[in-house]
Amino acid sequence: MNPKRTVAAVSLLLALAPLAIALSASAAEPAKKEAAKPRSMQEILDATQPSDWRALDPANTLYLELESGRVVMELAPGFAPAHVANIRTLAKEGYWNGLSINRSQDNFVVQWGDAAEEDKDRKALGTAQQKVPAEFERSSEGVDFTRLPDKDGWASQVGFADGFPAARDNKEKKAWLTHCYGAIGAGRDVAADSSNGTELYVVTGQAPRQLDRNITVVGRVVQGMELLSVLPRGTGPLGFYEKPKQRTPIKAIRLASDVPEKERTPLELLRTDTTAFTDLVEARRNRRDEWYKRPAGHIDLCNVPLPVRAPKTP
Amino acid sequence: MNPKRTVAAVSLLLALAPLAIALSASAAEPAKKEAAKPRSMQEILDATQPSDWRALDPANTLYLELESGRVVMELAPGFAPAHVANIRTLAKEGYWNGLSINRSQDNFVVQWGDAAEEDKDRKALGTAQQKVPAEFERSSEGVDFTRLPDKDGWASQVGFADGFPAARDNKEKKAWLTHCYGAIGAGRDVAADSSNGTELYVVTGQAPRQLDRNITVVGRVVQGMELLSVLPRGTGPLGFYEKPKQRTPIKAIRLASDVPEKERTPLELLRTDTTAFTDLVEARRNRRDEWYKRPAGHIDLCNVPLPVRAPKTP
Repeated sequence: MNPKRTVAAVSLLLALAPLAIALSASAAEPAKKEAAKPRSMQEILDATQPSDWRALDPANTLYLELESGRVVMELAPGFAPAHVANIRTLAKEGYWNGLSINRSQDNFVVQWGDAAEEDKDRKALGTAQQKVPAEFERSSEGVDFTRLPDKDGWASQVGFADGFPAARDNKEKKAWLTHCYGAIGAGRDVAADSSNGTELYVVTGQAPRQLDRNITVVGRVVQGMELLSVLPRGTGPLGFYEKPKQRTPIKAIRLASDVPEKERTPLELLRTDTTAFTDLVEARRNRRDEWYKRPAGHIDLCNVPLPVRAPKTP
Repeated sequence: MNPKRTVAAVSLLLALAPLAIALSASAAEPAKKEAAKPRSMQEILDATQPSDWRALDPANTLYLELESGRVVMELAPGFAPAHVANIRTLAKEGYWNGLSINRSQDNFVVQWGDAAEEDKDRKALGTAQQKVPAEFERSSEGVDFTRLPDKDGWASQVGFADGFPAARDNKEKKAWLTHCYGAIGAGRDVAADSSNGTELYVVTGQAPRQLDRNITVVGRVVQGMELLSVLPRGTGPLGFYEKPKQRTPIKAIRLASDVPEKERTPLELLRTDTTAFTDLVEARRNRRDEWYKRPAGHIDLCNVPLPVRAPKTP
């Protein structure tokens, strides 16, 4: 008997190191014909070329520095240009440094920003904008959209754009980023245009896709989700912490481009517009390892793994 | 400006107390006609009758006792009778007492059981069965299935059975429980019938529906998910902890029926075969509070809240 009797599957956000991508230990099914043997995700990744990967752009990468480590986030200027510009200014000027994570609602989101209740006590925004327009969606024209063939209940088309999980409506000619695990959004009040990027949340639970097109998605976490997802849940309404000392201090949020190069976290992401990615999605849609008795024949947008690796040192 | 600029929504597993169900603070839209005013989830819950709720059956309720508190789990004898019978025996005989939670994989599952690597070191099963049949699905005949009208990519029909998120295939005449947040399954090795209920996992991430019909679902967590979802992620393969001291000790897993009545956690669950529940699903499918600018017109099976409350004291 195997003492590690378990659920064989990998997490959505993959481990960092090139060889540390956690996979089922079980072997592929016995090959009948060489050509017909389906490849595992690891085999597909092992066969990728350097051009299948892209580096993070330091000017659109944020580091959230916590006592427990660094969370790496990729911004999405193609979808939320005004918010991203404001967030870049806020980061440049150290707006969040010394603020805190103020909310953790189980199976939903964590959120950080200025916890002060009164306007007079709130941190000044420096040269950042107090108001920016809502950016819930954009024109689908000019969006390089890699469509998934899989059915989705929330949108007529889902897929990937600029490496982000996204959706598209061809009748309305709109595209938008979706609320999958790790998505980063700009908290707002009741008014659609009441977000400015100071309050940011990250999805830590079952994809709350009802938020799509209702709030501005500004990017996603590409590494370090496990530092956010384990934060104790707040016991106040909406998961806000009831006592200031329960909040998690933010040491700093910086643009990678403002961090000395040797202190950066170099990362490469598998491009989503490649054959390798399409093959990987198919390997996940129909799991062929011996553990699976019935491949699903389907994958949900938010179950697609988005591989991240450390660049190979030359 | 509202300093709590935020994401207004509730978690999937609701707070316990009758009035503690966390809701958006914002008021409903201004009423145009009394009859046409859509009700909020809270208003629907407030208008429920006692007959809309059911008590947990103590003989099919497990308490997982951790240092941090109690996790309450409902077993599903209608779907996994052999596993549930074995789990009841294991609990009755104290099998898990002193064992530990050995795995926490980010955005996937936590898992507990016997961490011993060698068969000779493993805890004896007492009068429980070493082998039980796989119970991945059952005949759909006799299943009281409340169908959701919403599209699902993983199954031809989804809905609720015995209060559990479930799916059905009318051609194959099968029904099964689905892997939503909080689902409890019986870990297994490569052989389909290699689970016996000793190793249990709980879904803590984006619904891994690819596991449906590939492993036996034995129940779900109805209270205390936040004690499991915050456990530090294991850094070994599949999220297993690398060092024994990283594991979370299990003080006990007991059947509620074996616990003195005054030490039990009395809970009521909203029945899923009621008009109140149908109304609640619709209120979530099309959010009408002022915060939402575009109701989704859809809800995913695993986004449907399953309300739990403490019974009203007489």
